[in-house]
Amino acid sequence: MKISCLQENLNKGVTTVSRLVSIKGTLEILSHILISTENGRLKLSATNLEMGINYKVGAKIEKEGSITVPAKLFSELISQLPLGKIDLEEKDETLYAKIDGFNSQIKGLSSEEFPLIPKIKEKKIISVTAGELKDAIQMVFFSAAPDETRPVLSGIYFKVEKLKIYLASTDSYRLSEKIINLKEKETSIKEIIIPAKTMIELSRVLDDPEKIVNIYINETQIMFETDDFEITSRLIEGKFPDYKQIIPTGAETKAVLDKDKFLSVIKVASLFSRDTAGSITLNFSTKGKIEVIASGSQYGETDSTCDAEVTGKDSDIIFNSKYILDVLNNLPSGNITLEISGKLNPGVLKKEGDKDYTYVIMPLRA
Amino acid sequence: MKISCLQENLNKGVTTVSRLVSIKGTLEILSHILISTENGRLKLSATNLEMGINYKVGAKIEKEGSITVPAKLFSELISQLPLGKIDLEEKDETLYAKIDGFNSQIKGLSSEEFPLIPKIKEKKIISVTAGELKDAIQMVFFSAAPDETRPVLSGIYFKVEKLKIYLASTDSYRLSEKIINLKEKETSIKEIIIPAKTMIELSRVLDDPEKIVNIYINETQIMFETDDFEITSRLIEGKFPDYKQIIPTGAETKAVLDKDKFLSVIKVASLFSRDTAGSITLNFSTKGKIEVIASGSQYGETDSTCDAEVTGKDSDIIFNSKYILDVLNNLPSGNITLEISGKLNPGVLKKEGDKDYTYVIMPLRA
Repeated sequence: MKISCLQENLNKGVTTVSRLVSIKGTLEILSHILISTENGRLKLSATNLEMGINYKVGAKIEKEGSITVPAKLFSELISQLPLGKIDLEEKDETLYAKIDGFNSQIKGLSSEEFPLIPKIKEKKIISVTAGELKDAIQMVFFSAAPDETRPVLSGIYFKVEKLKIYLASTDSYRLSEKIINLKEKETSIKEIIIPAKTMIELSRVLDDPEKIVNIYINETQIMFETDDFEITSRLIEGKFPDYKQIIPTGAETKAVLDKDKFLSVIKVASLFSRDTAGSITLNFSTKGKIEVIASGSQYGETDSTCDAEVTGKDSDIIFNSKYILDVLNNLPSGNITLEISGKLNPGVLKKEGDKDYTYVIMPLRA
Repeated sequence: MKISCLQENLNKGVTTVSRLVSIKGTLEILSHILISTENGRLKLSATNLEMGINYKVGAKIEKEGSITVPAKLFSELISQLPLGKIDLEEKDETLYAKIDGFNSQIKGLSSEEFPLIPKIKEKKIISVTAGELKDAIQMVFFSAAPDETRPVLSGIYFKVEKLKIYLASTDSYRLSEKIINLKEKETSIKEIIIPAKTMIELSRVLDDPEKIVNIYINETQIMFETDDFEITSRLIEGKFPDYKQIIPTGAETKAVLDKDKFLSVIKVASLFSRDTAGSITLNFSTKGKIEVIASGSQYGETDSTCDAEVTGKDSDIIFNSKYILDVLNNLPSGNITLEISGKLNPGVLKKEGDKDYTYVIMPLRA
């Protein structure tokens, strides 16, 4: 292999694929990235066996070929090099990198040892813009379960039906659902479950909102493809909870309030709920406010007020502050609505003007 | 105690003193900060028994008094509150903090439990501007030994003699010396050794370069004082090595080169010297360059060139890359000089145009 490309493009690609590499893994080859040539471009690949990425960088190919190199060393090296044209050459399983006064050689491993990142050959199922997909992921990823005690809960539910994509996640304490509206009729997809980690990695790579993302699916895997990359991931087996049934319809009390102001009030309350399982009380008052109280901590207590347009019944409810922080930290600025129906029923948080987003929080018992 | 002050000023003060607080200490009171009133201002105090800080914040004092509160909770709370006037009141060992819709109470401990931070009453020894002192600390702190195997090496040597302040540190592998020139005659100080941690903390607090820092010393302690704060620290007992004798006079080879370009070459070489004890070879060539080579690593090797105006003999030497990175990372941009006399003698690095700074590096054997 002998190629040249721009340091800035290579650096972006290497940084992107390196995030997937496990430093601590037992298989040495998985701490490497595969560098190869494909259709006149340089292709960087990494995989952790659960998911894999191929990322393409514009390059001048003098000689086709491939090699794998340790991801950490290679990405640190490329990031330290100056801007400009960099020459890469493979000889005897060593990669030679040259740019403007810097000559380095990295010992690699044969590309034959590198696990295949499967490309899904089935027909494309659906296309969506990167911007819509990235926003949707950001609004649902945080309510997936962080561990795999119940594997289905560590994933993001994904379904395509009647011009809509449904994304949802729940750790059984709270639930997020975001719907993306499609303009053209697409093939339906019965529900599948995608690992949340795959979706988080995907959303990081989606940096140009105008790009089109094509999605391919087979029995066990999903592939997201743009003209710059392919991300392939296993799917999670199992049945996602029938979450639709727990989304409340109607509410006794409804508040409209500013997201950022509410966030600071909740942040302050969360400081005083660390030793009380995150427990904070929200008092909805039709006098135009929500009072947020954290008490019972050995460290002290706090009582703050957030202006809110409250309609319906005066009411109060106890939530885990973490579950409110998570959603507020991931929503853009602007108004939100918060609806409750007494102490024992789940609350519903929405973005004002976005009927396609729903966040449901289970209350805590007093 | 009942006072009011601006959130922004309080936040700056609390952030500053909280850095000294040990979270993991065995004495609960040391994880607290002392809040008290003094001469019409609010005084925030923290100590780790080795050093202590008093930081003053402008405030309206309605009633004098004092209390201690957990540093972590208090600093997180203050940083989350909105800008504006905050009211603080102490009642029954609880601190009440109020601002614009936020009411919080933090349970404290009696201020009588808080260790006294001694003020040194001896006559002022010396005054220096904060800017000069901060720059000097930044140029010497990193060569102090990180552990206390030999306590004197974990400190910064400090001496005042004939209109000069000498600061120096060495871990026995390299040495930094910076001289501050005084305008007015000051009392001489025979050498003392100040913990490097104290000096690092001091340099963080010195944010206005024009401020005057007064220095007081007694047998066992030093105090740095401005109109905003006092930092008091124990001194390290013992005798600092006679470092002057190891600073080479004259050199066989001298190079003048750009600091930032040299830094990138050394950074790249350091990547390939992680498994070879940091070992990198510098080849000085009177053809106008220094070649930096890292070889012998199991991961590969690198060979880079930095333009340099080299005079004297062509020569080479092996250094630990870490010791060069440390100094380059702490010097401002501009030209530096690097002088060596063969493979076995220490090298000397200086900032061009600054005859008052000297960095000496011991070579490694091949």
